[in-house]
Amino acid sequence: MSIKQARLDLNRRKRLGMVEAIWGENKTSEQIVEILKCLHSAGELALVTRVNSEKAKETKELLENVEFHSEARCLTLGSPAEKNPLLGEVVVLGGGTSDLYVASEAELALRWHGIQTDLLLDVGVAGLSRLLNQLDRLKSAKVLIACAGMEGALPTVLAGLVPQPVIGVPVSVGYGVSLGGKTALEGMLASCAPGLVVVNIDNGYGAAMAALRILKKDF
Amino acid sequence: MSIKQARLDLNRRKRLGMVEAIWGENKTSEQIVEILKCLHSAGELALVTRVNSEKAKETKELLENVEFHSEARCLTLGSPAEKNPLLGEVVVLGGGTSDLYVASEAELALRWHGIQTDLLLDVGVAGLSRLLNQLDRLKSAKVLIACAGMEGALPTVLAGLVPQPVIGVPVSVGYGVSLGGKTALEGMLASCAPGLVVVNIDNGYGAAMAALRILKKDF
Amino acid sequence: MSIKQARLDLNRRKRLGMVEAIWGENKTSEQIVEILKCLHSAGELALVTRVNSEKAKETKELLENVEFHSEARCLTLGSPAEKNPLLGEVVVLGGGTSDLYVASEAELALRWHGIQTDLLLDVGVAGLSRLLNQLDRLKSAKVLIACAGMEGALPTVLAGLVPQPVIGVPVSVGYGVSLGGKTALEGMLASCAPGLVVVNIDNGYGAAMAALRILKKDF
Amino acid sequence: MSIKQARLDLNRRKRLGMVEAIWGENKTSEQIVEILKCLHSAGELALVTRVNSEKAKETKELLENVEFHSEARCLTLGSPAEKNPLLGEVVVLGGGTSDLYVASEAELALRWHGIQTDLLLDVGVAGLSRLLNQLDRLKSAKVLIACAGMEGALPTVLAGLVPQPVIGVPVSVGYGVSLGGKTALEGMLASCAPGLVVVNIDNGYGAAMAALRILKKDF
Amino acid sequence: MSIKQARLDLNRRKRLGMVEAIWGENKTSEQIVEILKCLHSAGELALVTRVNSEKAKETKELLENVEFHSEARCLTLGSPAEKNPLLGEVVVLGGGTSDLYVASEAELALRWHGIQTDLLLDVGVAGLSRLLNQLDRLKSAKVLIACAGMEGALPTVLAGLVPQPVIGVPVSVGYGVSLGGKTALEGMLASCAPGLVVVNIDNGYGAAMAALRILKKDF
Amino acid sequence: MSIKQARLDLNRRKRLGMVEAIWGENKTSEQIVEILKCLHSAGELALVTRVNSEKAKETKELLENVEFHSEARCLTLGSPAEKNPLLGEVVVLGGGTSDLYVASEAELALRWHGIQTDLLLDVGVAGLSRLLNQLDRLKSAKVLIACAGMEGALPTVLAGLVPQPVIGVPVSVGYGVSLGGKTALEGMLASCAPGLVVVNIDNGYGAAMAALRILKKDF
Amino acid sequence: MSIKQARLDLNRRKRLGMVEAIWGENKTSEQIVEILKCLHSAGELALVTRVNSEKAKETKELLENVEFHSEARCLTLGSPAEKNPLLGEVVVLGGGTSDLYVASEAELALRWHGIQTDLLLDVGVAGLSRLLNQLDRLKSAKVLIACAGMEGALPTVLAGLVPQPVIGVPVSVGYGVSLGGKTALEGMLASCAPGLVVVNIDNGYGAAMAALRILKKDF
Amino acid sequence: MSIKQARLDLNRRKRLGMVEAIWGENKTSEQIVEILKCLHSAGELALVTRVNSEKAKETKELLENVEFHSEARCLTLGSPAEKNPLLGEVVVLGGGTSDLYVASEAELALRWHGIQTDLLLDVGVAGLSRLLNQLDRLKSAKVLIACAGMEGALPTVLAGLVPQPVIGVPVSVGYGVSLGGKTALEGMLASCAPGLVVVNIDNGYGAAMAALRILKKDF
Repeated sequence: MSIKQARLDLNRRKRLGMVEAIWGENKTSEQIVEILKCLHSAGELALVTRVNSEKAKETKELLENVEFHSEARCLTLGSPAEKNPLLGEVVVLGGGTSDLYVASEAELALRWHGIQTDLLLDVGVAGLSRLLNQLDRLKSAKVLIACAGMEGALPTVLAGLVPQPVIGVPVSVGYGVSLGGKTALEGMLASCAPGLVVVNIDNGYGAAMAALRILKKDF
Repeated sequence: MSIKQARLDLNRRKRLGMVEAIWGENKTSEQIVEILKCLHSAGELALVTRVNSEKAKETKELLENVEFHSEARCLTLGSPAEKNPLLGEVVVLGGGTSDLYVASEAELALRWHGIQTDLLLDVGVAGLSRLLNQLDRLKSAKVLIACAGMEGALPTVLAGLVPQPVIGVPVSVGYGVSLGGKTALEGMLASCAPGLVVVNIDNGYGAAMAALRILKKDF
Repeated sequence: MSIKQARLDLNRRKRLGMVEAIWGENKTSEQIVEILKCLHSAGELALVTRVNSEKAKETKELLENVEFHSEARCLTLGSPAEKNPLLGEVVVLGGGTSDLYVASEAELALRWHGIQTDLLLDVGVAGLSRLLNQLDRLKSAKVLIACAGMEGALPTVLAGLVPQPVIGVPVSVGYGVSLGGKTALEGMLASCAPGLVVVNIDNGYGAAMAALRILKKDF
Repeated sequence: MSIKQARLDLNRRKRLGMVEAIWGENKTSEQIVEILKCLHSAGELALVTRVNSEKAKETKELLENVEFHSEARCLTLGSPAEKNPLLGEVVVLGGGTSDLYVASEAELALRWHGIQTDLLLDVGVAGLSRLLNQLDRLKSAKVLIACAGMEGALPTVLAGLVPQPVIGVPVSVGYGVSLGGKTALEGMLASCAPGLVVVNIDNGYGAAMAALRILKKDF
Repeated sequence: MSIKQARLDLNRRKRLGMVEAIWGENKTSEQIVEILKCLHSAGELALVTRVNSEKAKETKELLENVEFHSEARCLTLGSPAEKNPLLGEVVVLGGGTSDLYVASEAELALRWHGIQTDLLLDVGVAGLSRLLNQLDRLKSAKVLIACAGMEGALPTVLAGLVPQPVIGVPVSVGYGVSLGGKTALEGMLASCAPGLVVVNIDNGYGAAMAALRILKKDF
Repeated sequence: MSIKQARLDLNRRKRLGMVEAIWGENKTSEQIVEILKCLHSAGELALVTRVNSEKAKETKELLENVEFHSEARCLTLGSPAEKNPLLGEVVVLGGGTSDLYVASEAELALRWHGIQTDLLLDVGVAGLSRLLNQLDRLKSAKVLIACAGMEGALPTVLAGLVPQPVIGVPVSVGYGVSLGGKTALEGMLASCAPGLVVVNIDNGYGAAMAALRILKKDF
Repeated sequence: MSIKQARLDLNRRKRLGMVEAIWGENKTSEQIVEILKCLHSAGELALVTRVNSEKAKETKELLENVEFHSEARCLTLGSPAEKNPLLGEVVVLGGGTSDLYVASEAELALRWHGIQTDLLLDVGVAGLSRLLNQLDRLKSAKVLIACAGMEGALPTVLAGLVPQPVIGVPVSVGYGVSLGGKTALEGMLASCAPGLVVVNIDNGYGAAMAALRILKKDF
Repeated sequence: MSIKQARLDLNRRKRLGMVEAIWGENKTSEQIVEILKCLHSAGELALVTRVNSEKAKETKELLENVEFHSEARCLTLGSPAEKNPLLGEVVVLGGGTSDLYVASEAELALRWHGIQTDLLLDVGVAGLSRLLNQLDRLKSAKVLIACAGMEGALPTVLAGLVPQPVIGVPVSVGYGVSLGGKTALEGMLASCAPGLVVVNIDNGYGAAMAALRILKKDF
């Protein structure tokens, strides 16, 4: 049944200009392989998110062309779309190494759509100078994606410093009150910085698709 | 003290390319007038949000040039920025008349920055045909702002139908579980539509500033 | 002790016109077998819900006539009640393959009571056309059960399109704010569609019993 | 703008077989009158819910044919639909006098659609004998609507005693943990009685429309 | 360090008239044995709560006189206090077999203090007749402890039927909104039955100690 | 309708041995008077809780024999039951003057049932010596009711010091995290003191009825 | 009764080295005057917090020597303690004018204990340069109190920049998810900056007393 | 990438006067070793928090000089800073053995910075005499850190008894409403004891760093 769905989705996603993405968390490696084969036979690229290393290994045993991106916890089949420099660059920022998975998912998803990207980690607000040192670097970006767990203040500080679109991604890293990412999420929504937008906790792929919509708005 | 703040904010907002906005909810009419005069003497436009009709009346008695936009619950002083058709149009959608205040705040804030706007109400998901009838109308928009209370499904449905950037604004209308807008907010964040972004509950101004960042990204 | 309970429940359930159902989640395979044997010796059908494949395997080793319905995560003993076409058909809808378990539990529970059913998956609101294409198909149904995770908008959209009773079942699929199904639940309760009713998260069996009460109201 | 909406809604509601209902809580008496006039000129009945006595008085001064139902906090214009005895009777039950408003809203909404109704108050679970004494009386009902605040146990107890469809309506009466009706709502959703369905807190109108869908399923 | 604590606690508990109880959930079998030996050498009884079968087995291998009560998930060392019939009987009631662990913990804790007890399961409110059939049986009890998960209505119904002290114990059984026992807890606190008192979720031991304080108030 | 209810309740309450209490918060003075007259003509005492001074004044104008107890926010009609010294004394403690309303409601409700009471305020845990100075005073009490807002630690400390039954009453005094009394409630439920029982926030009357059940258990 | 309490508190507060503070929010002006007179006759200073302008006016009419500090919403009687420069200075910072009340309460409470203070407003994180410009100014402070509403990021950023003790005070300013200050509170607790401590929402007085404990630790 | 981060952090931490700490919970033993080697080659001490015994064992196999402190669940490399008696002593208190991990983390972190410390367990508020017996012992401490789970009342009681700075650390021990430590946290924030400050749940390291800031304020 899921194969028919994948096929139907192709139409919708194509209309929206997006590569097919499959949420891998609740799927078995067999289900993932079935969907990937279906997409492949249709000549389509594919991106599977939220795949841990065991499931990745199982999937590769079943379908050897699959590639695992361990930092992004994603599987891909086929090559990324050709780079389209006209659309401009997206910079993905993270507060710490704990944000790596989510930031990498966003970065990979964009790269797979042919978008030029850069990844800047360790620019958290508890050590402001590192972020301030990067401000010049950020000028060339068309869109910024800022991932942060704990109190989630990075996107707020960033949106007060630069005029571009800033997409905040709360990360479910932390303990006590920050367990699960809700504190980071609410901190970003409550932000005093004007024009900051937010996606669901850990939703790197969603932030990437939002950036894609923004980059493609004139095309 | 707030006057000095307003002056300082001018620098930051100018750098970000935004007209000064003042959150009127917790301020007295005297405080609002003091800030408006300060901005006026600096040759600046100004927008005061979250002003009820009593406070608006009091403020107009103190400063007669002030204009009250009752549907948006906003005060303005001076004329809006000149319309800049190159930046493109933003369409603001609402599920019902209860979303009027929030949608109008977004629409007014954009219009005051010289952005071309349109306001489409009564396109809620409980009567889908009205929304589907407007799909052609939406094609020319560069960005869509979708306001919705209750279960907040409008932005989800919309982002599945169109490829542009969609900004969801949860509205604090409803009762029982939807009282305060949290259900609409979480529904938008949990959305299965890829690339939908969200701002705080009732934050029409924030959605407008996000749209502005998007429209200006190439300028 | 649980056997005595099962026997007592037979009286109540019979009065309510319902086949005995056992919640398998917190029971061991030994406890399940003991209850099933007791029901069998009383000439009764039985349905055990929330059984994973390991526990199903263990139970089958202890009682070989037991049948496992893996998509519905249910065990049954004996044959379903004879189909009663006079009561009419129930259609169970799901937003995605992640809703499969819950939708199948509802479908199986109804089928086991002799109700004619149909299962329509992949009709989520992020790709509206698939749902709209099925509207004619839904006309013959007496009751609709709509299962949805994430933002849970499917039952709201459905209840705005058709006049029949619609029972919403929130599904605990998702991450971040939608983790656990509470967002889907509250979205359904807050729905702007008139006359939508809701059951507990993942409660496919409960939705089936509600549909049964509705179908039997004139008998 | 709201008038156009009302007109559009007529089409949808007619298709769903429901009289137009207007949520009066956030509307001014002027807005209410405007909508009522529009409906009246279209030859339609109308029901305005959540109207307090002051707003009702104001509205009657503007439109004298309007009738106020103080126990249900509703305004109506025109006469109810002709009673249709073929559809069967709905009994609305309440745990205490504090449930009166919500139970009456449900009862009135049904009566206005031509449904035969009865209202049974003071049958709360803290004094079980009163409920048990009414069991015979409930046999003739096709659907039961059970309103309860505090711990909200009435629908659970009821659904364990009778085989008909039972719709639970949580009521926002109480203090401390039961303030706002969330405890009653969650108690009904968590119910151990099979096949109980629930609507939003205080949503008497919604429960009535759900009952209407059930009664009309064969027509 | 914990041994010294146990010794110190002896003084306090003795003054309060309670046998030493050790919360076993977060302790290793080694830590439990160390404490039990210390109590034994002081001539004291002991009760260890929240012990699963693996930890029980490990503990018995280290200290063979220990007795495991699997239904109550408790370990004891030594014999219970002599039965004191003057204090009167406590009846522990449960809504279903899922409440067995918690009800048995309460029952065992009381029995270990020399209190006469009885355990009545399967008297949940979804099948009222079973509870009503036991009312005569309850007359001789001095205190009632009612354990319930899901919506937790049993103590409310009970306290409306009998004049004795009723202690409600919410049980963390259920799924969706009732997951973790919070719905049962809040339902008991919000109860419309006068004079019902409540303890923490799953706190069978706490309910037993409350009953003990009540029974001993005149001694 | 409420009058009939009151009459029916008389039977139940009498069986439970409790004076009729009416929750005055959501009732008008006219409704209160109607119920009081009905009780009076039946020769019954009555207690109306949660009455502010304006409503009390209005009620006294309508029914002059009514007595207002401003510290307890209660109205009474008739004289209290004769004091019954055999049942023993209840001491009601409060952490601060902010607990006065709730503690007085408990104290008055007991006094009205003929129970001997004492009220000890200003024994909060932030100034332990005052509580420790009263320990001797507490020895003669059969039951203790401890009211506390903020962090609600008083009942925990008390139950560690004395062997009698202790009933904790959370009070909705405080701000920030303690606003509404939920922190005090959860603190009491989570208490490390064995055998502490709890009632709903601000439920002084409920605590009194629990104490009454305890005092009467042997009568 | 409250007077006796005030007297008793004098002993405790003196031992702790703190001036008597009275929480004015839930007290009438008569109650406040009674307590102030009692303190005055004992030769003590006094500080009443959370007093709005009406209550302040009423109180001044009853006791003319009382002084109202409108920005701090506090009343004082008598002169502040003599300034003690040896203890060092506390700087109180706020993100915006909305933090004024809370910051002023902290500042006044310290000044009244003889502590040298400074108040820096408008140093919110959405306009970082203003905060960075003040870093030199902060070097002389022994303790910093940082008040912030919305997302509450100011204390986090500050504690990453300076080595002194930083006390975060969440402020209940905002709307939507930040309504009531919980988002600011949790953001401060979840902070990635090491050694940041937090007090309750709006608790300027508490922060001041914490600063006082720190300043006096060597005296 | 994390190594570069560690190096950068050295600058910031040195400026703040703190030894480098690494949050070990979400890191692999390989990642931990990489960071430790980097710090070691820079001549720096290091502290890794939240390390369970398996991960500790794995890490020791990779880097033999590493020392595991099992009670504090921490790894260290190198010797602690030289003891600096001028800064004064910190006493860490805990309510029970369940608080051991968190209290030990705080104690170790301070000891590693050269601070003189003492650890007092089993001084919970349910057995007040043990705490009162230690009051003299506490006089010499400059700062007190009080760890408590369940209802978290220890810091409140302590701050009412002593004039020094008291830092409350909520501990995630408990079940039912106290599961996860939120009840303890909110109890400490809501505390009626003036000047109590709080850190995140289980954040022993954060409390230690706060104490360090306080001790160093004059150096």
